[in-house]
Amino acid sequence: MTRWKITIEYDGGPFVGWQRQAEGVSVQGSIEAAIEKFSQEKATLYGAGRTDSGVHALAQVAHFEIAKKVGADTVRDALNFHLKALPIAILSAEMVNNAFNARVSATARHYRYRILNRRSPATLLIGRVWHLPQSLNVGAMHDAAQFLVGHHDFTSFRATSCQSKSPIKTLDRLTVNRNADEIIIEASARSFLHHQMRNFVGTLKLVGDGKWSRQDVKEALDAKRRAAAGPTAPSDGLYLLRVDY
Amino acid sequence: MTRWKITIEYDGGPFVGWQRQAEGVSVQGSIEAAIEKFSQEKATLYGAGRTDSGVHALAQVAHFEIAKKVGADTVRDALNFHLKALPIAILSAEMVNNAFNARVSATARHYRYRILNRRSPATLLIGRVWHLPQSLNVGAMHDAAQFLVGHHDFTSFRATSCQSKSPIKTLDRLTVNRNADEIIIEASARSFLHHQMRNFVGTLKLVGDGKWSRQDVKEALDAKRRAAAGPTAPSDGLYLLRVDY
Repeated sequence: MTRWKITIEYDGGPFVGWQRQAEGVSVQGSIEAAIEKFSQEKATLYGAGRTDSGVHALAQVAHFEIAKKVGADTVRDALNFHLKALPIAILSAEMVNNAFNARVSATARHYRYRILNRRSPATLLIGRVWHLPQSLNVGAMHDAAQFLVGHHDFTSFRATSCQSKSPIKTLDRLTVNRNADEIIIEASARSFLHHQMRNFVGTLKLVGDGKWSRQDVKEALDAKRRAAAGPTAPSDGLYLLRVDY
Repeated sequence: MTRWKITIEYDGGPFVGWQRQAEGVSVQGSIEAAIEKFSQEKATLYGAGRTDSGVHALAQVAHFEIAKKVGADTVRDALNFHLKALPIAILSAEMVNNAFNARVSATARHYRYRILNRRSPATLLIGRVWHLPQSLNVGAMHDAAQFLVGHHDFTSFRATSCQSKSPIKTLDRLTVNRNADEIIIEASARSFLHHQMRNFVGTLKLVGDGKWSRQDVKEALDAKRRAAAGPTAPSDGLYLLRVDY
């Protein structure tokens, strides 16, 4: 068997999410179907991160094994051929040894969240950003975000459905910057809890609105209760940016 | 009567183009309908540039007149309210005097064309770029483009349906640059002929492919026959970027 690492870009809009489900079209299930059409083999695809419905990826990483002997360019092109009806692109395929595991071997995951912060609605970016018409204080959001960086119990920012064994994680970086009428929030960590990034954004938005101080963010973290933090931001603005190994 | 200048962003994908037509939904017709809903007045909207079906705008400019007395923010917000089912956004509204004419007063128009130049297909940029899998020589494209800059008879790059009185125009700027896996082509001129930008791109693509030399581009220009230049590039990658007054 040969183990393949693939890097994947997708528009999360039309999918039920990364993970295969009983109902609906998933990214994982669509790529597994493409692998079977190309290789005539049933393979399981293991992803680095389970993105929710509507969440996009610029460089998701996954691995699978097949017996068929082929070159890396053939794997990439054949999968893209069988995926052409869907907004999923295999950016690259690479042969890896059996020690490589897309989920377990990852040393860092990077997410980006895009807010379109202007009075007028989105047009070309519909489904790609969270549109917020009121002007947000980006400096205050960035300052407050720094309370979240570090080794913490992130229970307040974790979906109640989260299956992670522990809510204690190390957040390496959380930045908030403005680029013209967009606000870009980026986070890096070895791993994330379910909805963690979207709950960060929903909370920092309260700071940007002037409704919360940065001290309120610290108290929300310390409370270790989901209800103590802000609401979950919409999936549309979230992108899995990169996975490091 | 008050004359209003509005700046408009739109996704050209779902429209038959800027111009009102007997069949189908146009950008002009949609905004005129919104003006009527808001003011109870029938007004004609005059645009700076007639974009074709599928062509996008980041800052199209248009003007119209209504008797209703209101503030600029109200005009913008009311039009956006009545346009909310469509990917059209009024970015700003500004009261202007009667000498202002969105089409005639324009001193420069700026267009951008985006090519996604990578082996893998587009996902998040479907309908927003021209996807070309083979690697293009951007330096050669830029060099060849410089033959087109200046005061020329652009018959070779003009749609046979073009209604402009003269094919003689002055092209101020035509640049080709790479940004990661995108090729960005930008052009500036006081005015453009119908399909001129898309015909430039279709021709420069032949240079990028190595099929044409820059001398071939010069000869195509000199031939003053549409058939002498390259094919018309798809509408998806074209954006009306800005109009100067």
